[in-house]
Amino acid sequence: MRMVDLIEKKRNGEELSKQEIDFMIKGYTNNEIPDYQMSAFAMAVFFQGMTKGERVNLTQAMVESGDQIDLSGIQGIKVDKHSTGGVGDTTTLVLAPLVGALGVPVAKMSGRGLGHTGGTIDKLESVPGFHVEITNDEFIRLVNENKIAVIGQSANLTPADKKLYGLRDVTATVDSIPLIASSIMSKKIAAGADAIVLDVKTGNGAFMKNLDDAKELAQAMVEIGNGVGRNTKAIISDMSQPLGFAVGNALEVKEAIDTLKGEGPEDLHELCLSLGSHMVTLAGKAASLEEARNMLEEVMKNGKALETFKTFLASQGGDATVVDQPEKLPTAEFVIEVPAKEKGYVSEITAESIGIAAMMLGAGRLTKESDIDLAVGVMLNKKVGDMVNEGEAIAYIHSNTKDVKEVMDKIYSAYQVVNEKVDAPTLIYTEIQ
Amino acid sequence: MRMVDLIEKKRNGEELSKQEIDFMIKGYTNNEIPDYQMSAFAMAVFFQGMTKGERVNLTQAMVESGDQIDLSGIQGIKVDKHSTGGVGDTTTLVLAPLVGALGVPVAKMSGRGLGHTGGTIDKLESVPGFHVEITNDEFIRLVNENKIAVIGQSANLTPADKKLYGLRDVTATVDSIPLIASSIMSKKIAAGADAIVLDVKTGNGAFMKNLDDAKELAQAMVEIGNGVGRNTKAIISDMSQPLGFAVGNALEVKEAIDTLKGEGPEDLHELCLSLGSHMVTLAGKAASLEEARNMLEEVMKNGKALETFKTFLASQGGDATVVDQPEKLPTAEFVIEVPAKEKGYVSEITAESIGIAAMMLGAGRLTKESDIDLAVGVMLNKKVGDMVNEGEAIAYIHSNTKDVKEVMDKIYSAYQVVNEKVDAPTLIYTEIQ
Repeated sequence: MRMVDLIEKKRNGEELSKQEIDFMIKGYTNNEIPDYQMSAFAMAVFFQGMTKGERVNLTQAMVESGDQIDLSGIQGIKVDKHSTGGVGDTTTLVLAPLVGALGVPVAKMSGRGLGHTGGTIDKLESVPGFHVEITNDEFIRLVNENKIAVIGQSANLTPADKKLYGLRDVTATVDSIPLIASSIMSKKIAAGADAIVLDVKTGNGAFMKNLDDAKELAQAMVEIGNGVGRNTKAIISDMSQPLGFAVGNALEVKEAIDTLKGEGPEDLHELCLSLGSHMVTLAGKAASLEEARNMLEEVMKNGKALETFKTFLASQGGDATVVDQPEKLPTAEFVIEVPAKEKGYVSEITAESIGIAAMMLGAGRLTKESDIDLAVGVMLNKKVGDMVNEGEAIAYIHSNTKDVKEVMDKIYSAYQVVNEKVDAPTLIYTEIQ
Repeated sequence: MRMVDLIEKKRNGEELSKQEIDFMIKGYTNNEIPDYQMSAFAMAVFFQGMTKGERVNLTQAMVESGDQIDLSGIQGIKVDKHSTGGVGDTTTLVLAPLVGALGVPVAKMSGRGLGHTGGTIDKLESVPGFHVEITNDEFIRLVNENKIAVIGQSANLTPADKKLYGLRDVTATVDSIPLIASSIMSKKIAAGADAIVLDVKTGNGAFMKNLDDAKELAQAMVEIGNGVGRNTKAIISDMSQPLGFAVGNALEVKEAIDTLKGEGPEDLHELCLSLGSHMVTLAGKAASLEEARNMLEEVMKNGKALETFKTFLASQGGDATVVDQPEKLPTAEFVIEVPAKEKGYVSEITAESIGIAAMMLGAGRLTKESDIDLAVGVMLNKKVGDMVNEGEAIAYIHSNTKDVKEVMDKIYSAYQVVNEKVDAPTLIYTEIQ
């Protein structure tokens, strides 16, 4: 078998067999197939697409290129959640204890943030003492005991995907739905969950700018998940503005605590209930989405969700008293108001710009080696559809320096204010299963 | 400027500017742009094509990536001829002395053969003593004196094209008309001619299997040539069978001598007159193609073409007496008949298989380092349209070994013999200017 023939086959719109895809991914992982052949192949896929069978086989081959996490020691149906990325997306911090409180095991492998999107581990590390450096055995034990634990990403998870992703980034082959779908799904599948709930974002702040593309991506991922025997569902949610109000590590932890109490921002609250309902039903803990939603609302009200969060934090070394005394979380020295320049209605908040503003304050990493400031970030005060008066705060900057001119400009650039009344955007567009 | 943005632009079907193409080719030549970006770009070109302007700019950038031959010391309009490659294509050996005899300067830079297609230098070296190791000054002087000289290819001619061609070969991006056209034209333009006549082959033995593709390629090359100020014309000729009868180095030299006397095979004779007429008119030596053809026929008849060939051979060290005594050329030990297995009409002779048969005998190189046997080859005895009786010779193998079983099988595999009468194929399909 020769890689050049496989490139030609794909270029001509033919379907590759499982054997051919395995040959390609193994060879690429072992450096036997060079980058210049793989990038030509990726460009051919950009134009010719991949069949459902090819997508499943590509994903499976990438899963098998590295370690696969064995979660068989955990009792129950392990359900994982994945978001295609956004700004101020605090859902994982809320969902894990929320469904954990209902006995759904959450064995979460998470990463750190890079660029303008935050990482779950960074957020959790704003709880003093909390750490993810635990052994695999400890991880399994903690999930069995508490229904929830978080561990850092294995270095050797889907190396083929890591390599291919890096290559696509510099060869203009990122925007290919089969390649995006198999990249995301390979990581989720290798991480060992039995079932997967996907939150595919759409809107100006998301990778998928329009709804049709988001649907196509969601469909592709659901097909791959089910194709490799993992029960998979997806919802498509709005990212035409950041989710919730908080963008920044400790700020988002505080917002997650509020949401676990049932006092969170409306959009974050609703998205967590929707995603959570799918997780609970996939885990077999409820017969319908409606029943699941009622159960989730119950554990918010009766404090069980919050208790599960405390137990989780404490069992990984964290100071659980932050849950009742959020002032113990890292706090920025200055809170600087961003006043509206004009009266009107907020019509758009470019999530990416808000994420970049938070990164400029120190909340995010420019490179993998950067240190981050857990206390800083942006608290939105007005969201899409809100009326705002001239001089009224649209947002607050939480900063450890007074010099926030550029950050403020970035926030202004994110907000569009118009004269006509604007409706709040639809939060959840559709569900794919 | 970033290469990834240029790849994306091409991928999206936009046109690259001259500055962008220059940046890309300079960077690629200097190894600043890696192969994996260039191969993704080439695949994007495969799908999106290139505009006329892009093709001209790409060609010019490749010309400027290395040495450009300065032929300004040669008097008159220098006309070069290029064939897109074939088997038994002896036209260069005939054309150079033929138009040289009419005062058209032929400053030929040639290469050696690789694989199943022969090289002009190899063929000429079957004349004892002939060599192409001459200095540039000597080359210019010889063309001025004799109107014809042949020199080996400069090592640093269009290095960008060499690199890109090697990459395309292993990334399934060879079959792209803009890339083929700019590759061929960059070499011709760097070689310094004022005008170019192209012989684009079509048929089973050619790179362009069908006439439409051949026309498109010819059109693309003519546009590039004229776009960079070199008067360029193309003819599209048949390669559904080898040209002439001889395939092999000394065998083709002998056939060229016959053709210069006006006694060559009909197809080779006619193709040389057609290509030669274009060369003579482009050089300004005749006012019309008809006048040029009459002049060419005249120098065949009066012996001037043959005299020019002799002078040329002698001035580069060759034994010119071979022209009158062809038995002095290298001669194979055995001449083995290939008898027809059945009676019928020849409907096809796969040129590539005949070329491979000659290579198996030692006439061609498997790798750049292989030694070749100048004496051996295949002499066709029957061509498409010919009637053949069972047991009659369809070809003769000129070999230095008696063990020619595999070569014979290869020749049989090339010949298709059918019951119905078959017309000889059209030799020249059309002209593009």
